[in-house]
Amino acid sequence: MDHQTAIEKTITMLEENNIVLTEEEKKNIEVADMGLGNLEVEGLQLYTYINTERYCAKELVLFPNQTCPEHLHPPVNGEEGKQETFRCRKGTVYLYVEGEATKDTNTHPPKGKEVYYTAKHEVVLRPGEQYTIPPNTKHWFKASDEGAIVSEFSSTSRDEFDIFTDPEIKRV
Amino acid sequence: MDHQTAIEKTITMLEENNIVLTEEEKKNIEVADMGLGNLEVEGLQLYTYINTERYCAKELVLFPNQTCPEHLHPPVNGEEGKQETFRCRKGTVYLYVEGEATKDTNTHPPKGKEVYYTAKHEVVLRPGEQYTIPPNTKHWFKASDEGAIVSEFSSTSRDEFDIFTDPEIKRV
Repeated sequence: MDHQTAIEKTITMLEENNIVLTEEEKKNIEVADMGLGNLEVEGLQLYTYINTERYCAKELVLFPNQTCPEHLHPPVNGEEGKQETFRCRKGTVYLYVEGEATKDTNTHPPKGKEVYYTAKHEVVLRPGEQYTIPPNTKHWFKASDEGAIVSEFSSTSRDEFDIFTDPEIKRV
Repeated sequence: MDHQTAIEKTITMLEENNIVLTEEEKKNIEVADMGLGNLEVEGLQLYTYINTERYCAKELVLFPNQTCPEHLHPPVNGEEGKQETFRCRKGTVYLYVEGEATKDTNTHPPKGKEVYYTAKHEVVLRPGEQYTIPPNTKHWFKASDEGAIVSEFSSTSRDEFDIFTDPEIKRV
């Protein structure tokens, strides 16, 4: 999928769910393929509403079965790592965090990439459900067949410090 | 309007706009009449998704022409006051903040309460538009004829320290 198609699909999914972006905001939708060049399998789309020194809010859009690769948010300049609350708005999100491995998970890491997906505690989020991921905790997440929209409320976002498990990933 | 009617109207407005709350969450919707006993004129309805020591996110619901009275968020325990980003989701919100008075504003404070509404710089927010209110800044806001839904992204919320201009108000 090319960049422009990804943008258009993202806008359609948001509009179908009554989430309005202004025309100016639509130009700032971010398509993150993590430098892997295989967006439909590993990546995500997002819009950052606000990111200040105190808080941040984003809308995350996942296409059907798309996976955001495993990463964590480390401490930065003596401040705790980013803490995130994921609230599912549409679709189903399978979220995996560090902790006791879940038996018989609903889905799996992308084929051939299993070694870079170590967090195995599953949290299933459907519309209206949310989960808060502590700082400095490995996590990854994947949408169900129909894709998903997730509102992210968090402390300040500093994407350039994120640590991905897959060394081939370039986030920024 | 009684409390239960206000809750039901709030749920209806959220559902009509694809904003899903779980059954458990619906029980925690807050109806804030500010102790004034005149909810349809002065007050608001809200649901707090998350409020941690680092960030907060709420959904605010305003009935047609309902006004949230003027207040500010002062510094607390040496930390700057609450900073808030208001993002309009539905309807139109007329927001008034400290600053140069706007001539010919779109709406006015509730009748007989003008003395408690001193912020006169108008910001009009329609769906997809947002505005960030600095800490320690007087503000109030009013919905248009069709009511409004506003997503609030902010630093930690400590409502009990809010300072209202109207001395009759009891927020918590």
